[in-house]
Amino acid sequence: MKVTVVIDTKGTDKGVETVIKGVSMALQKFSDVNYLLVGDKKCIRELCMAYAVPFARIDILDAPQEITNYDNPLEAVLQKRDSSMVRALEALSEREDLFGLLSAGNTGALLVSAMRYLRIDAGCRPALAALLPSESGGFVCVVDTGANVDSTPQMLHHFAHLGSAFMKEAYGIEKARIGLLSVGAEKGKGNKLVKETYPLLEGDASLRFVGNVEGTSALSGVCDVLVCDGFAGNQVLKMTEGAAKRVIKDVIRYAKKNQSEEVAALAKHLFSIYDMESRGGANLLGVRKPVIKMHGSANEKTVVNSTEMLIHIAKHKAIFDAEKYKS
Amino acid sequence: MKVTVVIDTKGTDKGVETVIKGVSMALQKFSDVNYLLVGDKKCIRELCMAYAVPFARIDILDAPQEITNYDNPLEAVLQKRDSSMVRALEALSEREDLFGLLSAGNTGALLVSAMRYLRIDAGCRPALAALLPSESGGFVCVVDTGANVDSTPQMLHHFAHLGSAFMKEAYGIEKARIGLLSVGAEKGKGNKLVKETYPLLEGDASLRFVGNVEGTSALSGVCDVLVCDGFAGNQVLKMTEGAAKRVIKDVIRYAKKNQSEEVAALAKHLFSIYDMESRGGANLLGVRKPVIKMHGSANEKTVVNSTEMLIHIAKHKAIFDAEKYKS
Repeated sequence: MKVTVVIDTKGTDKGVETVIKGVSMALQKFSDVNYLLVGDKKCIRELCMAYAVPFARIDILDAPQEITNYDNPLEAVLQKRDSSMVRALEALSEREDLFGLLSAGNTGALLVSAMRYLRIDAGCRPALAALLPSESGGFVCVVDTGANVDSTPQMLHHFAHLGSAFMKEAYGIEKARIGLLSVGAEKGKGNKLVKETYPLLEGDASLRFVGNVEGTSALSGVCDVLVCDGFAGNQVLKMTEGAAKRVIKDVIRYAKKNQSEEVAALAKHLFSIYDMESRGGANLLGVRKPVIKMHGSANEKTVVNSTEMLIHIAKHKAIFDAEKYKS
Repeated sequence: MKVTVVIDTKGTDKGVETVIKGVSMALQKFSDVNYLLVGDKKCIRELCMAYAVPFARIDILDAPQEITNYDNPLEAVLQKRDSSMVRALEALSEREDLFGLLSAGNTGALLVSAMRYLRIDAGCRPALAALLPSESGGFVCVVDTGANVDSTPQMLHHFAHLGSAFMKEAYGIEKARIGLLSVGAEKGKGNKLVKETYPLLEGDASLRFVGNVEGTSALSGVCDVLVCDGFAGNQVLKMTEGAAKRVIKDVIRYAKKNQSEEVAALAKHLFSIYDMESRGGANLLGVRKPVIKMHGSANEKTVVNSTEMLIHIAKHKAIFDAEKYKS
C-alpha cells in the first residue's frame, strides 16, 4: 500500500537538516512511502541534494513562514497563512492522496490548525495520545499529553473514548482498561476535575473503567489507557523521559568510571527501551486524518519511527472513522 | 540538642510493625532523639518489646482510632478525635517539649489537622515540599506535592515564598532560583493557572524567578524550587519515583540474565541514589512546627531518614518563624 506522508519541516529544535536526514533514512527503510515536504523550498532542495534524497519520491510545498514556540497559537494560525504548519494542514485536508502529517511544531498551533482543517464535528475535541512503554511489555496510551491544558470532566470522558477506540483499532485491544490519573488510587482522591470525571467514566458501560491510578503505577500495566488533562499528561510524558534519561546517564558515567564493558552494554540496552526522543511522536486523535506531533527535540530517528507509526495506522485502517471517536 | 519527635504510627501501607522497626533503628543511630509514639498503646508496647526498643527513650500516647485513605479528610479530622493523627497534632500543638511530627497517613487529613492545630495565620496556606535529587548534585524543592490539589495563582505565589524561605533557612541557599512547572519553557506556555501565576512571580522582586520549566528539565538543576499545584507536583514526585524504580528493575533483570557482578554492583549504586520510598518524606511548610509527610509505603528506613530531616531542621532552627513564611 502506497502512502504519502506530509512533513512540516519547520518548528524542530534541531532544524530542517535533521528532518531531511530522517526522510533520507525513512525512504531507504520503507519502500512504499513518499513525502510531501513543506517549508522553505530552496533550503529543502539543497538539503535533499546534500543527503541524496531521491526527488522521485518527494515533493516540496513552499511555505516561507514559520510558527514558533513563542507564537500565540490562535493568532499564528490565523495570520501566518504561509507557514509550513498551516500549508501542510491545508494540503492534507484538501488532497485525497495525502495520508497523514508529521510535525514537531508548536503544540497549541497544531491543535488549532488541525481543528480548523481536519475536525470531525463540534462534539469531537482532538487530544494527543502518546504511547509509553508499559512495565508489563506493551504500551500505555496516555491521553491527553498537552493539546488541552485546561480540560473539563466532559473532555476527559471524551479522551477515554478516543483512547479506547485507538487501542482497539490500531492495536487490537478489544476493550482497553481505562485508568484515571490521580494523586491516589482510592475513589474520592484527586482534584476537582478528577472527582467530577470519575462518575462519568464509572457510569459509562461502554468503557472498561478500572478506577484511579497514581503516578507510581501509571505505566506499570494496570491500565491500557491513562486519561488525564493535558497539563498533567505532559508531566507524565516528560517526567518519565527526564527520569529515564537521567538514570541512563548515571549508568554511562558508572561504565566509564569503572571501565566496565558489561555496564556499557547495559547502557545501550536501556537506551533502546527508553530513548523517548527518538520514539514516534504523539497521535492527535479525534481528527479526520492521522497527525503525529513529534517531540520538539525530534531527531532523524524520530522521523523514521513516526513514519512507521503512520504505516501501522494505514495498515490497520485504524482511523479515522468519525463515528468511532465520538463519545 | 535533645529533640522529641512525635510519630503517628498508623496510616502506613506496611503497618505499625515497620514504624516500630524504624524507631528502633533511629534510636540507635541518633542518640539525642526521643519519641512520642501515637496509636494503639497495647500493640505499640508489644512491638517495642519485640524489637527491644528502650522504654526510657519513648513514650506512648493511646489513640484507638485510625484515619484511613478512604476517609473524607475534613469529616475524619472533625469526627475521629481519638485517631492517631488528630491526637498527635493536638499533642504537638500543646506541648512545648515536642519538636515535630512524622506521619504517613491520609495527606488531606494531615493538611486539615495541621491547619487546625499548627496554623500560623489565615494568609499562610500550608504546602508539601519534597526534596528530589537534582541532576547537578543538590536538591530541588518541589512545592506543592499534593496538599493543595486545586490551587489558585495566589497560592502558587505563596508556595514560591515557602520554598524560597525553606531552602534558605534549612539549606543555606541565599536566594533560591524559582522555576514554574509548565508544558514548555517559553513564557506564555501553560494552562490558565500557570499563565496567571507567571506575572505574580515575575513581578515579585523578593523572589529570584527563572521562568517556566518543563518536566524533562525540572530536576536538571535549572531551579532550586519548582513551584506547581499539588496535583501536578504529585505527578512530578511519583512519575520520577516510578520511572527510576523501573529502570533499576531492568538493570537488576539484566544483571541476573547475564550473571554480571559488575551490573549487580551498579544496581546497588543506583538504588542508593533513587530509593525514593526510603527517603525522608515531604515537609509541610507554612505551619508552626515541622511536620513530615512520609510516603504511604514508608519503610523502616523512611522513619530513620525522616528523623534525620527533623534533626537537620532543628539544628538550623530553620523553621518556623511565621514572618519568614508569609508572602
